[in-house]
Amino acid sequence: MAEQENMTLVVFSGDLDKALAAFNLANTGASMGMKVDMFFTFWGLSVIEKGSLARGVKSPMQWMMGMMNRGGASRRKLSKMNMMGAGTHTMKGLMKRYRMPSLEESIALAREQGVKFLACTTSMAIMGLEESDFIDEVDDFVGAATYLGLATEGKVNLFI
Amino acid sequence: MAEQENMTLVVFSGDLDKALAAFNLANTGASMGMKVDMFFTFWGLSVIEKGSLARGVKSPMQWMMGMMNRGGASRRKLSKMNMMGAGTHTMKGLMKRYRMPSLEESIALAREQGVKFLACTTSMAIMGLEESDFIDEVDDFVGAATYLGLATEGKVNLFI
Amino acid sequence: MAEQENMTLVVFSGDLDKALAAFNLANTGASMGMKVDMFFTFWGLSVIEKGSLARGVKSPMQWMMGMMNRGGASRRKLSKMNMMGAGTHTMKGLMKRYRMPSLEESIALAREQGVKFLACTTSMAIMGLEESDFIDEVDDFVGAATYLGLATEGKVNLFI
Repeated sequence: MAEQENMTLVVFSGDLDKALAAFNLANTGASMGMKVDMFFTFWGLSVIEKGSLARGVKSPMQWMMGMMNRGGASRRKLSKMNMMGAGTHTMKGLMKRYRMPSLEESIALAREQGVKFLACTTSMAIMGLEESDFIDEVDDFVGAATYLGLATEGKVNLFI
Repeated sequence: MAEQENMTLVVFSGDLDKALAAFNLANTGASMGMKVDMFFTFWGLSVIEKGSLARGVKSPMQWMMGMMNRGGASRRKLSKMNMMGAGTHTMKGLMKRYRMPSLEESIALAREQGVKFLACTTSMAIMGLEESDFIDEVDDFVGAATYLGLATEGKVNLFI
Repeated sequence: MAEQENMTLVVFSGDLDKALAAFNLANTGASMGMKVDMFFTFWGLSVIEKGSLARGVKSPMQWMMGMMNRGGASRRKLSKMNMMGAGTHTMKGLMKRYRMPSLEESIALAREQGVKFLACTTSMAIMGLEESDFIDEVDDFVGAATYLGLATEGKVNLFI
């Protein structure tokens, strides 16, 4: 019997295009029978944030960071050619036209397929985020050691 | 007999500096006897586009995306310090002075060395690109499943 | 006896956030007993530059590049939300408040733990940098072939 292959994806970026690439790889891998773990860190945390304004903020500095970088999958923007939202809007329109899943749909599909979502506790502390600020689908809140333990078992490990 | 090592590179970025890094790794690996597959996706597709304006565009939205992000290796810009082209021009001048291959020369060298070029069909659909929009050197037009099949055989897999 | 796991990190980016992520992974891996090699290339070279203005510059073009992209760990900025320095300043304040090591402290910790620092000679040539422009902690000045030799031994290889 063939051994199951593992994949880990560090999602460092909170950009729409990179998040879409990460979930496309995760969902394709899962559909091929791979075990997939996604480790969301730094700006990537915003992809799995609820996006509520009333998040667990502890200081004025964190409040400012949160306002400038509002979380939530639906608010992600392109890394390039955002053009005040026009480029992002265009990209979303094209994806719809070609019947490609949106980021929100890709997240739901990943969950159905058993992809694991891990949030980086170190980044959470810096950004003033608490567990309740994240979507319910997050499996665990862990540090880099847990990620590296998974990555050493992975055949494919990417930093996105 | 030593087994041949495999490397896969996801070229997500269309920036000159990242494309140069990708081809430097690909060409070095190939010269060391590694089997190298490059998977061009999203903005990275622009690196292997012909760059013609008369590309296979199907909608006004795709036409706009194409105009804003004109393809072709010779049109790639630095990710930072482009400075309206001055930074990119300076970098190209320094590479020439130090007899380093340009991006176009690196692409040709990669082909001579047997590096495989794969274009991501999912990204092509979103961006309205057809097979005829790419340089002849592209080996195949494939999805993420083909890439992941190669990556699970790879000793070195990077997302650039 | 368990075999030692190896990790290699290509540090392509000179952004503060990505450098912090790279050193967090390197230091966590080293504390878990992994052998860690960091290969600094392109903008990433700035992380291990001394940051002196009197660096080994050979041409006006290189002088301009150096002025625009002043090296040194203490001068790294966020990839997003730098906001003329306010975002970077805020991030540094939050890290201090949560007793997280600064980039400079992370570099020192990595050295204590035996993490190897390798500088890419190809990028150095383009940017007009000489060995004396780098901090003393750099172990070696090597090309992509040396990096790839290490990466083929690595369980975890990331491009940051």
